[in-house]
Amino acid sequence: MGNEQLEELRKELDEVNLQLVKLINERAKLAKEIGRVKSAQGLNRFDPVRERKMLDMISENNQGPFETSTLQHIFKQIFKASLELQEDDHRKALLV
Amino acid sequence: MGNEQLEELRKELDEVNLQLVKLINERAKLAKEIGRVKSAQGLNRFDPVRERKMLDMISENNQGPFETSTLQHIFKQIFKASLELQEDDHRKALLV
Repeated sequence: MGNEQLEELRKELDEVNLQLVKLINERAKLAKEIGRVKSAQGLNRFDPVRERKMLDMISENNQGPFETSTLQHIFKQIFKASLELQEDDHRKALLV
Repeated sequence: MGNEQLEELRKELDEVNLQLVKLINERAKLAKEIGRVKSAQGLNRFDPVRERKMLDMISENNQGPFETSTLQHIFKQIFKASLELQEDDHRKALLV
C-alpha cells in the first residue's frame, strides 16, 4: 500500500523532471537568441540589472514551498549556465 | 527594431521563468509528500540509487541546447534543496 503510493508519487516526480528538462532547455534557447541579438547590437551579454529584475520577479511570484532564497540560488545556476552557452556561441562566431 | 526584438524575447523569457518557478515548487511539493511516505515507512529520505536513476533519465531525455552535465548540475541543486525541505518537515514532526 505504502509502496504503491511511493511508486505513484515517483512517477509524478519523473514526469515533472522531464517537463523541467524541456522548460530549462526552452529557456536556454531563448537566452541564446537574446545573446545573438545583444551581440549584433554590440551589447554586453552579462547584464546585472536585468538579472536583479528576474530575481525580484521570482521573489514576487514564489508561492512556496521552496524559500525564495532557494529558488534564487537555483536560478543563479541557470543564469550562469546560460551565459556560458552564449559565450560558446560568441566564440564559435568569432572562429567563422 | 533590435530593441523591440530584445524586449519581445525578454518577455518570453520572463514567462518561462514564471513557469519554472511554478514547476520547481510543484516538484518540491511532491518531494515533501514522498518524504512523508518514506518517513512513515521508516525509510531513509536520501536515496542515491533513486537520484542516479533520475540523473540517467535526464541524460536520456536531453535534447539540448544545454549539455547533460549542466542540467544534471542544476538538478543536483534541486535534489539538495528538496532533501533540506524534507528534513525541515521531519524536524517539525519531531517537535509536535
